[in-house]
Amino acid sequence: MRPLRIGIAGLGTVGGAVLGNLLQNADRFADVLGRRIEVTGVSARARAKKRGVSIENLRWFDDPVELAVSPDIDAFVELIGGSEGPARVAVTAALGAGKHVVTANKALLAYHGFELATLAESKGVALLFEASVAGGIPVIKTLREGLIGNEIKRVYGILNGTCNYILTKMQDEGSSFEGALAEAQALGYAESDPTFDIGGMDAAHKLALLTCLAFGTRISIDEIHCEGIEHIRRADIEAADELGYHIKLLGVAQRTESGIEARVNPVLVPKDSAIGEVSGVTNAIEIEGDYVGDLLLVGPGAGARATASSVISDIVEVARGDCLKPFIVPAAMLKPHKKATLGAHRGAYYVRLLVHDRPGAMASIAGRMAEHDVSLESIVQRRPRKLDPGAAPKVNSNNTMQLVLITHDTVEASIRRALELIEQDGKIAGRAQMIRIEKL
Amino acid sequence: MRPLRIGIAGLGTVGGAVLGNLLQNADRFADVLGRRIEVTGVSARARAKKRGVSIENLRWFDDPVELAVSPDIDAFVELIGGSEGPARVAVTAALGAGKHVVTANKALLAYHGFELATLAESKGVALLFEASVAGGIPVIKTLREGLIGNEIKRVYGILNGTCNYILTKMQDEGSSFEGALAEAQALGYAESDPTFDIGGMDAAHKLALLTCLAFGTRISIDEIHCEGIEHIRRADIEAADELGYHIKLLGVAQRTESGIEARVNPVLVPKDSAIGEVSGVTNAIEIEGDYVGDLLLVGPGAGARATASSVISDIVEVARGDCLKPFIVPAAMLKPHKKATLGAHRGAYYVRLLVHDRPGAMASIAGRMAEHDVSLESIVQRRPRKLDPGAAPKVNSNNTMQLVLITHDTVEASIRRALELIEQDGKIAGRAQMIRIEKL
Repeated sequence: MRPLRIGIAGLGTVGGAVLGNLLQNADRFADVLGRRIEVTGVSARARAKKRGVSIENLRWFDDPVELAVSPDIDAFVELIGGSEGPARVAVTAALGAGKHVVTANKALLAYHGFELATLAESKGVALLFEASVAGGIPVIKTLREGLIGNEIKRVYGILNGTCNYILTKMQDEGSSFEGALAEAQALGYAESDPTFDIGGMDAAHKLALLTCLAFGTRISIDEIHCEGIEHIRRADIEAADELGYHIKLLGVAQRTESGIEARVNPVLVPKDSAIGEVSGVTNAIEIEGDYVGDLLLVGPGAGARATASSVISDIVEVARGDCLKPFIVPAAMLKPHKKATLGAHRGAYYVRLLVHDRPGAMASIAGRMAEHDVSLESIVQRRPRKLDPGAAPKVNSNNTMQLVLITHDTVEASIRRALELIEQDGKIAGRAQMIRIEKL
Repeated sequence: MRPLRIGIAGLGTVGGAVLGNLLQNADRFADVLGRRIEVTGVSARARAKKRGVSIENLRWFDDPVELAVSPDIDAFVELIGGSEGPARVAVTAALGAGKHVVTANKALLAYHGFELATLAESKGVALLFEASVAGGIPVIKTLREGLIGNEIKRVYGILNGTCNYILTKMQDEGSSFEGALAEAQALGYAESDPTFDIGGMDAAHKLALLTCLAFGTRISIDEIHCEGIEHIRRADIEAADELGYHIKLLGVAQRTESGIEARVNPVLVPKDSAIGEVSGVTNAIEIEGDYVGDLLLVGPGAGARATASSVISDIVEVARGDCLKPFIVPAAMLKPHKKATLGAHRGAYYVRLLVHDRPGAMASIAGRMAEHDVSLESIVQRRPRKLDPGAAPKVNSNNTMQLVLITHDTVEASIRRALELIEQDGKIAGRAQMIRIEKL
């Protein structure tokens, strides 16, 4: 059988690792597949850049689009990144020219996955993107193939290693949010502009793809409710810990009666749960299916070699032939994403308030909760105590006390309304902190 | 494209769930695959048996071999079980007749996988067996496809739910081994003759398949060192717990300098490790690859619906076409399994001794350890205390004391020899208990 000829655009650390892996496994893949996988062309920004692997014998393309449509390739591997610009142009050109595409680009797929899948299907070529979600964890293969016989009820997990690293640091070492972020940046886990990670958008892109695969709906990044971890304070981590919880940034997508609830948000999870114990940059995804029950995958969510592991898996799949459609069912059959009303979310909530230590404050707060049918499972009020140096204040100098409440199951709209009124009543300092408690 | 016509032999709970799933997903699979999956024939022991799904409209075969070679099927799904007898005959016949085969039969593959894979390859048909290892967890797909670009260093895990259930009961509820086993039998988690599970053979079959897939070696069930949990006492569970460990029955396969170390054995693992926390009938498998790093899969290791989930995944893969070879590389290229010397295993050990409370006992034991270069990390000697009712004796009436030792890393042959001599010296009552401490 003739070789599968591939072109790789983007030779950063992931691209280098992919090249190295193909070199290392060249003979093995030939044995496994009955055909060779040959890199016939590459494209990147700087030709002379020092890489772990030599690209001397590979044809160089200044323009990734030229590589994408080259008659010398059968498959185009896009490792450029970004939802627009050269990545989008090159992938579109490659598919249009009847080339298979393998990409690690979550943003491209989150925004243009539907049109790209439609194009790939019309040309009868593969569009694979295992590396775009959760790095080295084969979660897309698991949803597309391993659990193909399941109706998925819920998929959720830790999809952003940067945030999990920061939260772990705050948890384990008592770091402040700012200190943990600075350390993540120093270690290369966070970008110099970390907004995309800590604001939850990175996780939202990944969740959009998982949602589409799990529920057979069109990708709609705009329909994903997205909250980051910027507002999580050490006081929250500590209070949650005392109550038996860890705080994690989770992406959660689940079927509800009113539609699909898809959200990225910090949540409290029991500290001894499998998800609650995942620490550092590790990712973890739990999938609930009607046949399999609960399946948990835990592994590296980033890193050049782990990401390359997923890219290679896709390349080998292309070499085998006969891939499933990009989003399992034909793109034209993907249902519109019917969004569940977020206000309709029912669950328990963690609330932290800085209460002015004046008569009647507690009565007023409790009254507002009762008015909105929010009942309380636990209440922890801290007497003022000496501040730990560097700690987020549990009490502050303005004579306030920290009040932490855990509610019984309630409707989100109710607790939100109650907290709005509590803020208006002037019994608390600053804003109320509210975090969902996730039922695992 | 014309339908994939399948015949199913064996209609127990798994077979029933497979039939139900194919019925439920008939239209969806047609959309996904562009072809229908049709069950055209079935075979089982009792035609009239009550099942969740009607088989009235399916052609009945009294003889599974007749079904296996029927011109009306393209793929044969074997759910009969057993390494010999009808399962082996029917699968061999099906492959010989050029039918794809999907099976959940670990014993069949552990004993005859090599010859069956050779036959399948010579006929150009698929032989898939996802359901044979770890029930609903897609671990075989992960090794075959998701991690295809990795050199696997180690694969290990909890592969037998019955044993893990028993150990969890002993751990969490203080049950005796016998009590926990009886409960597992009452709940249907253990057979009336539980030897196959608790002796470790069930896990060894699964480990043999994982070893072959991970390391590209021929299956050799006889080369797998197999110890069960029959000798684990509550005293061990309790002593391990005090030292920060849980006892788990693990299947472990790893590359070593002297060959492949493949063993099923009870081991101590840190109780806060991911594997240490897996409780009940759940299975968990960790895979270490040179690119991906560590990947952990946790899910249901048994149960009709979870197993069916894996069978269905294989059937859909057959319907797609172009599967990889049964053991990834062509069977003829599988290397002989070069067994590592187990005596060469290096690690830490847990030792529990019932020491006669006489002068010089401790000195004699410590001397034997020192002679064999075994140094001790911790020593816990219990003063006699009142027996908890129903508890395994920490001390017994014959004036012995329990001595628990944790060694530093040492060579297995040394500690074994030291314990032999200690037994011969007559300073201890009964046999020495020795359990490996697994490095995770």
